[in-house]
Amino acid sequence: MILFYSDYLEGCHPEILKRLQQTNLDQTPGYGVDDYCNQARAIIKEVCGTPDADIHFLVGGTQTNATVISSALKPYQGVLCATTGHINAHETGAVEHTGHKVLALEGKDGKINASQVEDALSAQHNDPSYEHIVQPGMLYISYPTELGTIYSKQELIDIKKVCAKWDIPLFIDGARLGYGLTSSKCDLTIKDIAAIADVFYIGGTKQGALFGEAVVINKESLKKDFRYNIKQNGGMLAKGRLLGIQFATLFTDNLYFEIARNANRLADKLRNALKSKGYRMLAESPTNQVFPILSDEKAEELAASFGFEEWGRIDNSHTAVRFCTSWATTDEQIDSLIAAL
Amino acid sequence: MILFYSDYLEGCHPEILKRLQQTNLDQTPGYGVDDYCNQARAIIKEVCGTPDADIHFLVGGTQTNATVISSALKPYQGVLCATTGHINAHETGAVEHTGHKVLALEGKDGKINASQVEDALSAQHNDPSYEHIVQPGMLYISYPTELGTIYSKQELIDIKKVCAKWDIPLFIDGARLGYGLTSSKCDLTIKDIAAIADVFYIGGTKQGALFGEAVVINKESLKKDFRYNIKQNGGMLAKGRLLGIQFATLFTDNLYFEIARNANRLADKLRNALKSKGYRMLAESPTNQVFPILSDEKAEELAASFGFEEWGRIDNSHTAVRFCTSWATTDEQIDSLIAAL
Amino acid sequence: MILFYSDYLEGCHPEILKRLQQTNLDQTPGYGVDDYCNQARAIIKEVCGTPDADIHFLVGGTQTNATVISSALKPYQGVLCATTGHINAHETGAVEHTGHKVLALEGKDGKINASQVEDALSAQHNDPSYEHIVQPGMLYISYPTELGTIYSKQELIDIKKVCAKWDIPLFIDGARLGYGLTSSKCDLTIKDIAAIADVFYIGGTKQGALFGEAVVINKESLKKDFRYNIKQNGGMLAKGRLLGIQFATLFTDNLYFEIARNANRLADKLRNALKSKGYRMLAESPTNQVFPILSDEKAEELAASFGFEEWGRIDNSHTAVRFCTSWATTDEQIDSLIAAL
Amino acid sequence: MILFYSDYLEGCHPEILKRLQQTNLDQTPGYGVDDYCNQARAIIKEVCGTPDADIHFLVGGTQTNATVISSALKPYQGVLCATTGHINAHETGAVEHTGHKVLALEGKDGKINASQVEDALSAQHNDPSYEHIVQPGMLYISYPTELGTIYSKQELIDIKKVCAKWDIPLFIDGARLGYGLTSSKCDLTIKDIAAIADVFYIGGTKQGALFGEAVVINKESLKKDFRYNIKQNGGMLAKGRLLGIQFATLFTDNLYFEIARNANRLADKLRNALKSKGYRMLAESPTNQVFPILSDEKAEELAASFGFEEWGRIDNSHTAVRFCTSWATTDEQIDSLIAAL
Repeated sequence: MILFYSDYLEGCHPEILKRLQQTNLDQTPGYGVDDYCNQARAIIKEVCGTPDADIHFLVGGTQTNATVISSALKPYQGVLCATTGHINAHETGAVEHTGHKVLALEGKDGKINASQVEDALSAQHNDPSYEHIVQPGMLYISYPTELGTIYSKQELIDIKKVCAKWDIPLFIDGARLGYGLTSSKCDLTIKDIAAIADVFYIGGTKQGALFGEAVVINKESLKKDFRYNIKQNGGMLAKGRLLGIQFATLFTDNLYFEIARNANRLADKLRNALKSKGYRMLAESPTNQVFPILSDEKAEELAASFGFEEWGRIDNSHTAVRFCTSWATTDEQIDSLIAAL
Repeated sequence: MILFYSDYLEGCHPEILKRLQQTNLDQTPGYGVDDYCNQARAIIKEVCGTPDADIHFLVGGTQTNATVISSALKPYQGVLCATTGHINAHETGAVEHTGHKVLALEGKDGKINASQVEDALSAQHNDPSYEHIVQPGMLYISYPTELGTIYSKQELIDIKKVCAKWDIPLFIDGARLGYGLTSSKCDLTIKDIAAIADVFYIGGTKQGALFGEAVVINKESLKKDFRYNIKQNGGMLAKGRLLGIQFATLFTDNLYFEIARNANRLADKLRNALKSKGYRMLAESPTNQVFPILSDEKAEELAASFGFEEWGRIDNSHTAVRFCTSWATTDEQIDSLIAAL
Repeated sequence: MILFYSDYLEGCHPEILKRLQQTNLDQTPGYGVDDYCNQARAIIKEVCGTPDADIHFLVGGTQTNATVISSALKPYQGVLCATTGHINAHETGAVEHTGHKVLALEGKDGKINASQVEDALSAQHNDPSYEHIVQPGMLYISYPTELGTIYSKQELIDIKKVCAKWDIPLFIDGARLGYGLTSSKCDLTIKDIAAIADVFYIGGTKQGALFGEAVVINKESLKKDFRYNIKQNGGMLAKGRLLGIQFATLFTDNLYFEIARNANRLADKLRNALKSKGYRMLAESPTNQVFPILSDEKAEELAASFGFEEWGRIDNSHTAVRFCTSWATTDEQIDSLIAAL
Repeated sequence: MILFYSDYLEGCHPEILKRLQQTNLDQTPGYGVDDYCNQARAIIKEVCGTPDADIHFLVGGTQTNATVISSALKPYQGVLCATTGHINAHETGAVEHTGHKVLALEGKDGKINASQVEDALSAQHNDPSYEHIVQPGMLYISYPTELGTIYSKQELIDIKKVCAKWDIPLFIDGARLGYGLTSSKCDLTIKDIAAIADVFYIGGTKQGALFGEAVVINKESLKKDFRYNIKQNGGMLAKGRLLGIQFATLFTDNLYFEIARNANRLADKLRNALKSKGYRMLAESPTNQVFPILSDEKAEELAASFGFEEWGRIDNSHTAVRFCTSWATTDEQIDSLIAAL
């Protein structure tokens, strides 16, 4: 069996394990104030071109989203996002658990656009009973989205303009940030993301780390006392060094982007094969997630040798599925899959 | 100016004020354990045909909804409701404030049906990553709905069957219960409501009381320690007697239903006049709320002499509005409005 | 039986009922934006000498405390108060229900002092692991306290200095404010309270209203969007006029203070009688609550004719009890009680 | 510099790193349902003698405590614990963040006893206004405590009896469980803990793992849907295998207890040296934490070569400090410290 269920099926990139081994007996203070974390912070600020950003390391994505969002909102505010957004669909209501409504907007291929956001904000503020309606206090988007799609630079700039007009922060969930930025269809850089987002995170878990997400806070008002929020939400790792070591490794010699680029190359290979064989796609993802629509017959046949995720029924005899590539995927694995299609 | 903004524009039915006057100097214990409350409980149980129900009195609807819902759900559960449901649209996220997601289903004229509920429940439970998705733990419907429409007896029975199958309680928000039950289109009684709902409330605020909602709990597991929940949610009135006196008055000599019937009669009068003059309706409400679609010109003209609520833009030159009748509405007021149409 | 359990045993001061009667058929918009509320706001601002304050009316004390406190705190902040504080001891964890820790300080006779507050704040901020400790974000005190005691003007000024130094708002719970301000031992006025507190509330429920608490917000940062918080916490009364009418009545012709002064006079009468008969007191309350220590024998004997609250066991044969006077207490009732002592 | 700040200063026990290396390229499903986790579950059940227990792996202690506690409590319930309990003192109000009050009891050397718990429970339930008071719904104790002290078997049995009488679950925080169980003063085994606790956790972070806590649930009612709670609280690690691998390693060949025993031996060595040199102790910890009282002079002198935590001022010229030993502490390090004392 070769598994393509997700991009977190294996341990971690070997370079990370090597560094953990090398540093294992060093004594460091806990909770993310050690030298490894500071070193990782310095590299990330350099890469992002944001010398004044605050960088925090958390363990996982759900925790990161709930912490960032709940720390930014007033009690009566909610967070706008696409209906397919991870916080709306796949985090067991972690945001609501902190007391805030997720205000879902119907997206297209996982994306929402500036005018939808404008409409949502103006509708709430212009409603005669506006105080009876949750006030949007933040915009959450994923880059790339949960369907592997990406925003263009212009789309992000337009979205940011609306956020700025209404004075709400833009939060970008970058659980798979590298896959987006190294996609052949991408027209922006991590410096662009860092310049546009008020706060975003760089995902480690799905890009070669054992675990870990690096939150980059640009907006001044979101920086204050953020470590209290991390601790209260259970995201402050005692051995915080583990996060520093991993991110320092990923952002040394461009490793983070190399990993992603290779996963994208293999996804493209698979995608091209699928298309040439006449398969339709659920969404036009240009990143490491591939969403072909299979006949039930074909799906069953493939399932004997390959692991992949069922994504949703299309009709009585077809289902959309997801194949993910990652740092650990090999040409051999993809070739086997292509051969079986 | 004659106002039709809502059904809570005046003080209260004169009979209630009279009883408050008569009992004003009686000394009673606080927090709803006094004789007036017990008397009201006895009458309501009698009227509902539910001798074993627990009856609690709270002050307002938002508070009642949040208290009932949060006391019934596990932390990881959410409440299903129509997108137009009051808890989803007009309570500033009070349910989410208690930590629970509102799981909105697209309704029709404010109503949802049994198969939608079945689909939502089976989809969540059958999802391979079901633990990452909020589990529906209760169904909330409004009777009548926020658009004044009502469910038939069969529709409610079908909905209840699905709830029973999945073992989730059915909660009926009866903020305007009397208007529904005395509608000419209604095919059920308060005894039917009480037999179908696991928990429901009888609205006082919008039906002639100064304020107050009576929660009727049938399901055994929802009864335990409910008074703690009321207190914690700020709904336990110190002078609880005020609620007992009001509900005892409303449920003596059928006053609650007489009030509603008369309001419905006046709404019908208005509705018939509107229709005979060719106005379209936003929704076919058979209760005390009337939702005609007006040209902007007409709306502006009427606004000089009458108060009514804008409900939503229909197109560039038309808007849907709401007129409400209540215990205090008179034939003269409705006749004036009809004359101006 | 004559009941002295609390100061909310009867309906309301007759003047209020009269006004409710007179205004019953007036049509007003809901939710506290009507003319009666605005009139009450104007009078209260005048009385308090705070023309720039925001005034909001809520239904009950628990709800008011939770709303004010949760709207002022960041998620990781808690509220300092005395262990005997109402929010710590008698509100079923309503503050914690909104996500915030109550940071209780051991008081004396219900009061805490400036140096305790200073110590708590400096201890948290100086702790090497300060981010692991809840940050105090507000100070809550009751005036008068739950034991009927009152702060001197100097004590309040000292407390406020500490709050200002650490930049946390001072919130005064005035559920029984009038009883404190008209006590013979009081050396301050409502204008002093209004000048010292960042936010406070004027209690109606325990001082002659049917219900209702008037929140006075002085601090600019606490004013923004407060109505959203009221709505979300279930405290926004649909027929908000009821609160406006009641507070306008109470603050016309000094009624609020007259009620309290008379209740204090009767409490003094009882207190003097108790002392002259040799009873000890649990606390030296100079307001409308009286806390004598009775032998179990005496308590049982009195309980045959009078209602009063058990406050706590003192030893094997004695218990502290509470007698309350109110707007409705008469000289005859107190004389009967004194005769029975 | 040699650091004794805590027991989580280094990476992890080398055996764990070796296993991570060996398994790095295996493909496993995420979220803790992989074979490594199942293997670890089987070993832990065997070691604990609880074949019917549910075992879950979470990342850190604060998260584990908040998840276990909030999943067990009704909204109006709180959790009893010692004032020094980690949840009360060092988790930034994470429990309150989930809506529940921590009901702190004054302990002695970090411990509370059965009669205190009985008193707290009977006081709340017997209070005439019991619904206005948070209901204790769980008891939390730490074994060993935050001061390194341990309960005897009889003490735990007595505590459990009270919990059973009032039908509240007993939760034991075993962040340092091994250090307690291998203490020379300990009279019980992990099987005893598992037989007494309704739910407890076995700490990994402070006992040689990179991170991780293993929750053992015995009580049937606490088992249902627990994975939803983990996910919602951000504790479900995507690469759950990392937790399975670590705990399987720690519980193979008794490694978990060997690590702890050695740390205790070194702590005893230090303790004996301190005592023989006449130092007083803040608490009589028989585990891996040592709390001597140092003169400020001595503390300053030691701080030049050793890292340790200030625990609290004793008087004007003395402070209590904490030295921790761990799996990584060596005889050489302790000997250096002893020489410097």
